[in-house]
Amino acid sequence: MLDKKPIITLTTDFGLKDPFAGLMKAVILGINPEAKLIDITHNISRHNVFEASQVLAMSYKYFPPATIHAAVVDPGVGGARRPLLVITEDHYFIGPDNGIFTAVFEKEQSGFFKVLNITASHYFLPMSGSTFHGRDVFAPVAAWLSKGVDSHKFGKQITDYHKISIPSPVLSDGDTIKGEVVSFDNFGNAISNITLEFLSKSRPADSLSNFKIIFRDRRVPLLNYYSEAKDHSLCAVINSFGRLELFANKDSAAEKFDIRIGDGVIITIA
Amino acid sequence: MLDKKPIITLTTDFGLKDPFAGLMKAVILGINPEAKLIDITHNISRHNVFEASQVLAMSYKYFPPATIHAAVVDPGVGGARRPLLVITEDHYFIGPDNGIFTAVFEKEQSGFFKVLNITASHYFLPMSGSTFHGRDVFAPVAAWLSKGVDSHKFGKQITDYHKISIPSPVLSDGDTIKGEVVSFDNFGNAISNITLEFLSKSRPADSLSNFKIIFRDRRVPLLNYYSEAKDHSLCAVINSFGRLELFANKDSAAEKFDIRIGDGVIITIA
Amino acid sequence: MLDKKPIITLTTDFGLKDPFAGLMKAVILGINPEAKLIDITHNISRHNVFEASQVLAMSYKYFPPATIHAAVVDPGVGGARRPLLVITEDHYFIGPDNGIFTAVFEKEQSGFFKVLNITASHYFLPMSGSTFHGRDVFAPVAAWLSKGVDSHKFGKQITDYHKISIPSPVLSDGDTIKGEVVSFDNFGNAISNITLEFLSKSRPADSLSNFKIIFRDRRVPLLNYYSEAKDHSLCAVINSFGRLELFANKDSAAEKFDIRIGDGVIITIA
Repeated sequence: MLDKKPIITLTTDFGLKDPFAGLMKAVILGINPEAKLIDITHNISRHNVFEASQVLAMSYKYFPPATIHAAVVDPGVGGARRPLLVITEDHYFIGPDNGIFTAVFEKEQSGFFKVLNITASHYFLPMSGSTFHGRDVFAPVAAWLSKGVDSHKFGKQITDYHKISIPSPVLSDGDTIKGEVVSFDNFGNAISNITLEFLSKSRPADSLSNFKIIFRDRRVPLLNYYSEAKDHSLCAVINSFGRLELFANKDSAAEKFDIRIGDGVIITIA
Repeated sequence: MLDKKPIITLTTDFGLKDPFAGLMKAVILGINPEAKLIDITHNISRHNVFEASQVLAMSYKYFPPATIHAAVVDPGVGGARRPLLVITEDHYFIGPDNGIFTAVFEKEQSGFFKVLNITASHYFLPMSGSTFHGRDVFAPVAAWLSKGVDSHKFGKQITDYHKISIPSPVLSDGDTIKGEVVSFDNFGNAISNITLEFLSKSRPADSLSNFKIIFRDRRVPLLNYYSEAKDHSLCAVINSFGRLELFANKDSAAEKFDIRIGDGVIITIA
Repeated sequence: MLDKKPIITLTTDFGLKDPFAGLMKAVILGINPEAKLIDITHNISRHNVFEASQVLAMSYKYFPPATIHAAVVDPGVGGARRPLLVITEDHYFIGPDNGIFTAVFEKEQSGFFKVLNITASHYFLPMSGSTFHGRDVFAPVAAWLSKGVDSHKFGKQITDYHKISIPSPVLSDGDTIKGEVVSFDNFGNAISNITLEFLSKSRPADSLSNFKIIFRDRRVPLLNYYSEAKDHSLCAVINSFGRLELFANKDSAAEKFDIRIGDGVIITIA
């Protein structure tokens, strides 16, 4: 049974100029006036399913149990790709079957989760079009789910849902970890795919001080917080999402050092 | 009688750097803490009343009955232009008398609507200035209206409200429809002023397959959804707002084909 | 005792692409589902504490009493800078001790206010990191405060909090006021640090018509509202925040006249 004031989050590539995000909210509130609507972001790069997947995975656990996450980066809208409802132990996810939930599946792999193919079109907006399933399909399903409609009423479980490939760090020769830059934040910090979790699994006996961070063949000091660094020099930190991040204090590392997505980040172990 | 949790939407050209949208919300919640505030957009192009009018017209019907829409694109703020309250069968609109509601009037022309000139300044913020009626006039009027103040208390009905000219498609020689591109969305799709409604009124006996779409003297295929198209080629679709739209699958049609507002879109009928 | 539906506002330099603002809201709603969350802005220029201070000072008085304002422009995050809770007669402010509340302190100087150093880490998110105190420290403290936790439980009063220098206008020779441009808004209006309050204190006997506005050695007409001006010419107005502002009707004064932050604005008194 869901809370009476359920939270529905939105993650899209709609941008903030068009009324599209507002229209998803309009439809949701028309069905469930008690829903609390929280924007995760509407500025996912256009059609970038990988980026949306990463943003969702880093965000959803901070929301209260029973939160419903609607994610709409959907270049195949209107075509054959299926609408999905993903149920994990604590959260719901609604969006297209194009791999947008891949990073969530990874996070939940050791736990319980279930994927349903949404087919119950009587929950959709009547006279839906083919270009805006955010408004016509995902918003109303999220709203009905938030009102307590049983999840199995939306469709049947499937196991052949789509996944995208997400670059993983690799441990080679037992003492070298090869990762890469996978995203930048608003401050120009370069975020790698190397996680604390990966480090402690790969080398459980090591502490952070055993790791040497190498970027473009040069050592980068691993610090505890940003302002510990000399201004403008390239440094590393484990960020608040548990990821190894390259930064330049009082500067944008991305711009100053011309860092690109896919650039290698290497850890050698002393 | 209004709902106890009324929705107030905001449509402005304030952008999202200044605190202006937040201040409208501050004033509204100070008067009616129960109001639900939904941003339609704050990124209307600066002073572009036409754009705001289009966005409102494509949005408002998706909100529940009794929603109050505050629209503030207001280059004449503080001067002689009047503040308006527009009442349609299901919705309320509050904003300046500069034509911002023109496209709403068009949509409501066969129905009931009423336009009031807001003059009851005791509902305004005390000590209002001349540059920010969004905060000082429109927000408090929206909030008081949402609390159930009778609409006739805000001012008297008028009929000489302002309208702007909106380019309409034209049927010529009985078998050629001439429309034009009127806006772009975040994905670079080029949206025309040709609507399904216009097509079915102009040529009630025809189905979509009888229409040939012509753009810059070349035929553009009319498809059912985006991913049906060959990547990057120019195609057309009836979008989810019932409008003929030019798109390029996995690309921005606006950028790739250098489409501009006002470019002609022609339909010839087989 | 706080309201049951307290308002929490957010002012940050997080931008709107990353999920950071959404994650502050996630944490707040997890602790207090009744909180109403209002964005003042997330587009403060990166690390610009002065800009954040100005935006807060021009905004907070429009919110209802007992509103909690969380302000996170925090280049020193994770380091020695202290987290603060500022209590004024009507409002609460939560953020880093880096001067972000300076302009609020100025506004409240004749009234009552109190500054606490937040140290009660049991209110923080467990396992906080060093790079995102918005989510891990400021959001949960705001949420617990909004639930009625007594402010003295968060930490002890301090008096050595940090302030930044804010450029003030100067009255020289008794009849010349020297101010400067301190910010621009979305419309390209150039906002000075000369306030009505300063004018009436400096020259209480004068009316606005006694003041000649000088910008770059030329007189600029002081008008009552924007559309009173000849299009595109440089004019001045007292804006709705009580500040002298340079504008160009139907144009961006900043762009058209290449105005910069720090440019002098002079008033001579007849």
